Amino acid sequence: MTTSTYTVVGMTCGHCVASVTEEIGGIDGVSQVDVDLATGSVDVTSAAPLSDDAVKAAVEEAGYQLAGS
Amino acid sequence: MTTSTYTVVGMTCGHCVASVTEEIGGIDGVSQVDVDLATGSVDVTSAAPLSDDAVKAAVEEAGYQLAGS
Repeated sequence: MTTSTYTVVGMTCGHCVASVTEEIGGIDGVSQVDVDLATGSVDVTSAAPLSDDAVKAAVEEAGYQLAGS
Repeated sequence: MTTSTYTVVGMTCGHCVASVTEEIGGIDGVSQVDVDLATGSVDVTSAAPLSDDAVKAAVEEAGYQLAGS
């Protein structure tokens, strides 16, 4: 089990949080996603470390961006 | 056919627009809902004039408020 923290930019409301949670939660091996709307901080718990590309793709699928990408 | 304009406060993103559109669109007789996210202005076209209470209830069901209510 591993937990990584990402920063997502562009979320403005609870619907945004739900979209990001759903998309990242759909990545293979992810068991938990905790989003802090105020800061954009997203803690992702997974069975094995995730590729940054997979997380980036999920965030973009939801309609947002990883900070710095 | 009648069109009335309301102002909804609290919408921050396209998901919010979709929620408000869906709830107001569900009122009997409503044929069109146009939301301007930037201003909160919502034009509602309906077969007959709507009661303010019905619109207020729909907006609140979506999680937002009519301005001044």
